[in-house]
Amino acid sequence: MSSRIILNAFEMSCVTHQAPGLWRHPDNDADRYNRLDYWTDLAKLLERGTFDAVFLADVLGVYDVYRDSAAPALRDAAQIPVGDPLLQIPAMAAVTRGLGFGVTVASTYAQPYALARTLSTLDHFTDGRVGWNVVTSYLDSAARNLGLGEQIAHDDRYAIADEFLDVTYKLWEGSWEDGAAVRDRTAGVFTDPERVHPIEHHGRFFDVPGIHLAEPSPQRTPVIFQAGASPRGQEFAARHGEAIFINGLVPELTRTVTDSIRDKAERIGRPRDSVKILTLATVIVAETDEAAHAAHADYRRYVSVEGALALYGGWSGIDLAELDPDEPLEYMDTDAARSALSIFTLADPTRTWTPRDIAEYVGIGGIGPVIVGGPATVADELERWIEVGGIDGFNLAYVTTPGTFEDIVEYLIPELRRRGRVWDDYEGATLRERLSGSAVVPAWHPAHGYRGAYSGLRSAADGGASVLPATV
Amino acid sequence: MSSRIILNAFEMSCVTHQAPGLWRHPDNDADRYNRLDYWTDLAKLLERGTFDAVFLADVLGVYDVYRDSAAPALRDAAQIPVGDPLLQIPAMAAVTRGLGFGVTVASTYAQPYALARTLSTLDHFTDGRVGWNVVTSYLDSAARNLGLGEQIAHDDRYAIADEFLDVTYKLWEGSWEDGAAVRDRTAGVFTDPERVHPIEHHGRFFDVPGIHLAEPSPQRTPVIFQAGASPRGQEFAARHGEAIFINGLVPELTRTVTDSIRDKAERIGRPRDSVKILTLATVIVAETDEAAHAAHADYRRYVSVEGALALYGGWSGIDLAELDPDEPLEYMDTDAARSALSIFTLADPTRTWTPRDIAEYVGIGGIGPVIVGGPATVADELERWIEVGGIDGFNLAYVTTPGTFEDIVEYLIPELRRRGRVWDDYEGATLRERLSGSAVVPAWHPAHGYRGAYSGLRSAADGGASVLPATV
Repeated sequence: MSSRIILNAFEMSCVTHQAPGLWRHPDNDADRYNRLDYWTDLAKLLERGTFDAVFLADVLGVYDVYRDSAAPALRDAAQIPVGDPLLQIPAMAAVTRGLGFGVTVASTYAQPYALARTLSTLDHFTDGRVGWNVVTSYLDSAARNLGLGEQIAHDDRYAIADEFLDVTYKLWEGSWEDGAAVRDRTAGVFTDPERVHPIEHHGRFFDVPGIHLAEPSPQRTPVIFQAGASPRGQEFAARHGEAIFINGLVPELTRTVTDSIRDKAERIGRPRDSVKILTLATVIVAETDEAAHAAHADYRRYVSVEGALALYGGWSGIDLAELDPDEPLEYMDTDAARSALSIFTLADPTRTWTPRDIAEYVGIGGIGPVIVGGPATVADELERWIEVGGIDGFNLAYVTTPGTFEDIVEYLIPELRRRGRVWDDYEGATLRERLSGSAVVPAWHPAHGYRGAYSGLRSAADGGASVLPATV
Repeated sequence: MSSRIILNAFEMSCVTHQAPGLWRHPDNDADRYNRLDYWTDLAKLLERGTFDAVFLADVLGVYDVYRDSAAPALRDAAQIPVGDPLLQIPAMAAVTRGLGFGVTVASTYAQPYALARTLSTLDHFTDGRVGWNVVTSYLDSAARNLGLGEQIAHDDRYAIADEFLDVTYKLWEGSWEDGAAVRDRTAGVFTDPERVHPIEHHGRFFDVPGIHLAEPSPQRTPVIFQAGASPRGQEFAARHGEAIFINGLVPELTRTVTDSIRDKAERIGRPRDSVKILTLATVIVAETDEAAHAAHADYRRYVSVEGALALYGGWSGIDLAELDPDEPLEYMDTDAARSALSIFTLADPTRTWTPRDIAEYVGIGGIGPVIVGGPATVADELERWIEVGGIDGFNLAYVTTPGTFEDIVEYLIPELRRRGRVWDDYEGATLRERLSGSAVVPAWHPAHGYRGAYSGLRSAADGGASVLPATV
């Protein structure tokens, strides 16, 4: 691991991302999520702080587990309304030159042929600053509205995602050879069809016989982000993930997760450090410890218990509305109580947890740590997370926006720069080069095998259609 | 019809849109289609000319009918490589305040629940400047790569598109009442769930029981553009299209098309003038007639016959490679020859047409007129098209870009302003208000029926999930 700490801003095209109720805070602009200048101003701010990337979460459904209703989520704007996360990126890219963009798109509801073009276009437009957070989607409410009737079984979602990625890798790495788009005005050849290849993919879930519609972008394959907590998810992440996003609660326990991910990666032939692991964290930083704690106390007054339990319901599938909000979970004999307790005991095993405690915990920063203090205090704690937790960096959530990010840029970044933990300016041309020093998808990655794999094979210049008829 | 002429720039995220071979011209920047500043510079230029909108075409496949191969299209970059047309819009929107955006998305390969959110997001980000060009897709090569095996029958595509639009209208107009997003920080209510309604759509092709994921955008339903030439397509356009895009060849014959469209609209209860009809045209304008003709002659030297026949093959499904390029079509006894002749005879019945003649015709401006001259000559001809053809405006294709648009802004727009045919500055707040004076979707439009249609019915605040399980 390098001594540099990777910092992403954790954002979403919605009002309440990880701090339910805080939209009511007078300093919060989160309800301007649907204004383009909110995003372009944020991009310029993050670039001033040389953030690696803005990581954009997404859901294509509503949080309706809590109280078996979408009403609590709607009242607190808990990730609803929610916009398409791809569309602020081009505007943010136009006003920055170093900031990266990690965007969440579920493979469950898309077609690989079309999405591969979308992400290639974005990689062109950003000069190679795009990462794709591959998710398989966890909300039943999404599945019901997207033609699936009910959620596909969890493991099937990963099987679909595996093949989906395979198709996109073939399109991105294999279809167009380097230099196929010769752009030769004199010879009158824009693309040499001999160097463009149909991928002829005929799989269990997808048939994609044709050529990629986009010419190679700076990174070809976008940096693959992944967030998989289940065993199947971790396996998927170890295979595909260049950066993996986890929800660590305390550094000591997080180490077992990061060790497990690196072990899995190593077992399939990856260098241990080739996987960059980022954990969710919320930083409340000010000029002094006292000022930061005062801000924290102020923020806590705005937490919405209902909004927090709505979010928790969607993330966990557990409806805590059945339980007495003020009774310790350890006295309750229900699956919901046991399941919730098993998670939050990890965050602090020395105390009791009631549903209200959970809501207050989740209320600032979701299921992750809140780090409060002056510049040195916060920097110390982040370094402790890096060393003890074995992580490479953070997805930093906001309490208020752009307030939280302004404070980080003003107070924390200079301290981290002094410690040599954050660079003074971006290095490397693309997001991948900045994250791992590699210009192309690294050799251990499954996409790498498709680089040039079709050279010398059938090309778009060969007789017959460039695409074979599907043989399903 | 107003005396104002509607002007769109006809563009596409590719190198060769309607002028095959012209990418080789030294003044052409079309190969910068994958650079964001190409699009932001273009947006600022078009806004200086108070263009109504940039109309972005798209295909999700390759032109492989000609010579039964994608090679000719690849060599001449004939709409391949091609980028996602949604992604330049946010960057263009960020640097403009009046320019509209008409974007082509096929309903055949998308999910209405997800696309409705995408277009709502875009309508928010552009402050209500979005139009959606609804297409059903014509390329078999697209269908083969997008999970359909083979192209859905033409009429079925329209049946799917009809239901697809119905779902999106319900989401855009019916799901969220006006003012549902109350944003009340004091009361702690962002959205009033009583005023948000599940649409409970259970149709032949789609099941979408839930609520819309996005809050109402300035236009709610984007302006619906349509381009349907077949009888079924015209019927579809007459029902849904607020602006209809046609390929007229000469004004006199175009009048029969525009009359037919307006007749159809009137028969289903629309005002005749509620449909804005735009025709494809390519303008080559300069300071004088002579200079314009010299430019035209220069451009013609760059036309690519192979690229033109590749485009024509994709548009028509006809492969002219079978025919002698220099033999008049009237002497040939093949379906391809008869079909091609039936179209191009309309453009000029006084001459013979060979395949090469067709290529040279298509080579500048596709299947539409090329209008060449100084400012007065071109303005006269555009006015003749308006009066004789019964149209409302033009989708102006480029020969070189941004050259063609620069010439239009420099020479033609001032002349049209003098004649009162183009406004001095944008009027009306949204694209719809500019096109038709209507802030909301007009009363004749099928989307209008869903405005407030669910008020008083089941809401997201009612017991049970906000979304019903699908009952397929």
